[in-house]
Amino acid sequence: MSNNIVDEFNAYRSKMNEKLLADKNKIVKRIFNLDTNTYAEGALPKKTKELLGLGNSLVLRCDDCVRYHMEECFKLGIPKEEVVEALSVSLLIGGTIVIPHMRRAYEYWEALETYES
Amino acid sequence: MSNNIVDEFNAYRSKMNEKLLADKNKIVKRIFNLDTNTYAEGALPKKTKELLGLGNSLVLRCDDCVRYHMEECFKLGIPKEEVVEALSVSLLIGGTIVIPHMRRAYEYWEALETYES
Amino acid sequence: MSNNIVDEFNAYRSKMNEKLLADKNKIVKRIFNLDTNTYAEGALPKKTKELLGLGNSLVLRCDDCVRYHMEECFKLGIPKEEVVEALSVSLLIGGTIVIPHMRRAYEYWEALETYES
Amino acid sequence: MSNNIVDEFNAYRSKMNEKLLADKNKIVKRIFNLDTNTYAEGALPKKTKELLGLGNSLVLRCDDCVRYHMEECFKLGIPKEEVVEALSVSLLIGGTIVIPHMRRAYEYWEALETYES
Amino acid sequence: MSNNIVDEFNAYRSKMNEKLLADKNKIVKRIFNLDTNTYAEGALPKKTKELLGLGNSLVLRCDDCVRYHMEECFKLGIPKEEVVEALSVSLLIGGTIVIPHMRRAYEYWEALETYES
Amino acid sequence: MSNNIVDEFNAYRSKMNEKLLADKNKIVKRIFNLDTNTYAEGALPKKTKELLGLGNSLVLRCDDCVRYHMEECFKLGIPKEEVVEALSVSLLIGGTIVIPHMRRAYEYWEALETYES
Repeated sequence: MSNNIVDEFNAYRSKMNEKLLADKNKIVKRIFNLDTNTYAEGALPKKTKELLGLGNSLVLRCDDCVRYHMEECFKLGIPKEEVVEALSVSLLIGGTIVIPHMRRAYEYWEALETYES
Repeated sequence: MSNNIVDEFNAYRSKMNEKLLADKNKIVKRIFNLDTNTYAEGALPKKTKELLGLGNSLVLRCDDCVRYHMEECFKLGIPKEEVVEALSVSLLIGGTIVIPHMRRAYEYWEALETYES
Repeated sequence: MSNNIVDEFNAYRSKMNEKLLADKNKIVKRIFNLDTNTYAEGALPKKTKELLGLGNSLVLRCDDCVRYHMEECFKLGIPKEEVVEALSVSLLIGGTIVIPHMRRAYEYWEALETYES
Repeated sequence: MSNNIVDEFNAYRSKMNEKLLADKNKIVKRIFNLDTNTYAEGALPKKTKELLGLGNSLVLRCDDCVRYHMEECFKLGIPKEEVVEALSVSLLIGGTIVIPHMRRAYEYWEALETYES
Repeated sequence: MSNNIVDEFNAYRSKMNEKLLADKNKIVKRIFNLDTNTYAEGALPKKTKELLGLGNSLVLRCDDCVRYHMEECFKLGIPKEEVVEALSVSLLIGGTIVIPHMRRAYEYWEALETYES
Repeated sequence: MSNNIVDEFNAYRSKMNEKLLADKNKIVKRIFNLDTNTYAEGALPKKTKELLGLGNSLVLRCDDCVRYHMEECFKLGIPKEEVVEALSVSLLIGGTIVIPHMRRAYEYWEALETYES
C-alpha cells in the first residue's frame, strides 16, 4: 500500500511539471532550472542542502515540498535520526502548527522505507 | 473526468457558504458581501482585479482561492497566456514553495477548458 | 457519514502521533508535553484558551489544528454561537483567504454535532 | 520615555488611518467599520474578543496589531497574567519565530503601565 | 522631509544589492536577473504586472517590497485611485493584519508625490 | 559604527528576554529552555543545526531570528560562503519576498566581521 503514496506523488508531480514547462513562460522555466541547480554540491555538501530544503519546507508547511525533499534525503542515504533532528528544529521554530505536517512527513518517510521497487 | 473537479469544488463551496451565511454572524455576512463587491468594475477593469485576486491567492498558497479566481478569469475570457503570466509573477515573488499550488492551478484550468456543460 | 470525518481524523492523528513519539527525539517529546499543558486551566479559563487555540489555528490556516481545537471546544460544551464568533474574529483579521478553511471548520463542527458514539 | 512609544504609535496610527479613510475606496472604509464592530460585546465578552485579537496578531507576527490589541486589553483592565497567558498560547502554536515579537509586546505593555496621562 | 524616506530606501537598497551581487553566488545572481525580467512588457502590460507585484507584496506584508513596487507604479504614471484599488483587493484577501502595512504604503506614496528631484 | 548594530541587538534581546523569563509563565520558560537545547550537538553537527535555524528564519522572514543565527554561525567559524549558500536556498524557496531580509542579513554579517571587541 505504501507504494501508492510514493508512486502517486511522483506520477502527479511529473505529469504536471511537464505541463507547466510545456508553456513558453520564461520565468517558470528558469525557476525550475534554478531549482535543480540549487541543491547540487557546492560550498555546502548536497546532504546539508537537502536538509535545508526539507527544514524550510516544513516550517513553511508545504506538504508536497516536504515529500520531495524527504525523498531526496532518503535517496542520499541520510539516516532517519538526522532527518528527524532537522524536522525537530523546524518544529521548535515553527511551533505546534507544524505538527500535522510532521505527521504526514513521517507517513511519507515510512512509505519510502517500505517501498518495493 | 475533468467535470468532477470543477463540479465538486463548486458544489462543496456553495453548500458550505450557505451554511456559513445561515448563521446570524454579522462579520461573516459582511465579509461575504464585500467579497462580491471588491471584484466589480472600478478604477481598475474587472479582469485586472480578478488577476490580482488570483495572484494574491497563489502567493498566499490557498488552493481553493486559486481555483475560484481561475474560474472567474476563465469566465471573463482571459487567455491562458495572461493567466500564466500572472501566476509566474507570484511564482517569482513567492518562490518554489508555490510550485505545488501552481501544479494544482494548471490542473484546474485544464478542467475548466475541457468542461462540458 | 459524519462519523467518518471525526473518526478518520482522530484515528490518523493518534496513530501518527504515536510514531512521532516512538522516536527518541527530545524536542518532539517536549513540544508534545507542552501542547497538553498549555490548554489547562490557568489565569485564563480552559474555554478561553481553547478558543484562543482555535482562533490562532484558523488565522494560520491549519485545517487539522482547527479540527482539533473545534473538538476540544465541543467537548467543553462551548455553544456554536461563541465558536462562530471566535472564528469571525479570525476571518476579519486573516481576510477572505481564511474562508475555505472556515468552510471546512463548519463541516467538522456539524460532524461533531451529529456524531453517534 | 515610555510615553514616547505609546504616543508615537497612536499619533502615527491616527494620522495615517485618516488618510486611508479620506480616499473614497469603499472596501477600505467598510473593513475599517467592521474592525470597530468586531470587538464589541457579543456572544463572547469584549475581553475574550480582545484576547483573541491579540493572540491572532502575535501568531501572525504583526507588531502594530499586537500593540493595538495590547492597549485595548490594558484599557479593559485585563491583568498582565492573563495577557501573558494568551501570548504564551500563541508562542507555543507559532513557535520560537514569535519570540522577537513577544519581546516587543512586553516592551509595549511596560510602556502602557508606566504611561503618565 | 519626504525626500528622506524615498532617498534612504533607495540608497540602502542599492548599496546592499551591490554587496549581495558582489558575492559569486549563482542563485542570488539569477534570481536578481529574473526579478528584472519578470515585470517587463509581455502577455500582460507592464502596468498590470507592477500592480500584481504590489498586490502580492502587500498580502505577504513585505514593506520594502511594497515600497519598491509603489515606486515603479508611480514612475509608470499609474493614478493613485488605481493603486489604492489594487491595495484594497489585498486588504480584503489578507485581512486587517494588512492595515499597518497599508498605512506605511500610503506614507510612501505621499513621499513619492512630494518628492523634489 | 558596526558595533552599534550588534551591541544594540544583543542588549535589547538580553534585557527583554530577562523580563519575559521574570514572569512565572511555564510555557515561555520551557520554550526558552528548549530553544537552548535544540541547537546542541546531536545526530546532526551543531553547525548544520545553526544553518538550519538560519535558513528557517530567513524563509519565515524574521529579521531578529536571522540575526541571532547569523551570530551563532559566525561564532562557530562557519565561512561566509557557506552561510550565503544556506541563505540562497532560502531565497529560492521563499522567493523575492525574501530579498529585503537578505539585505539586512548581509548588513549584520558585515557588522559581525568588523566588530571590535
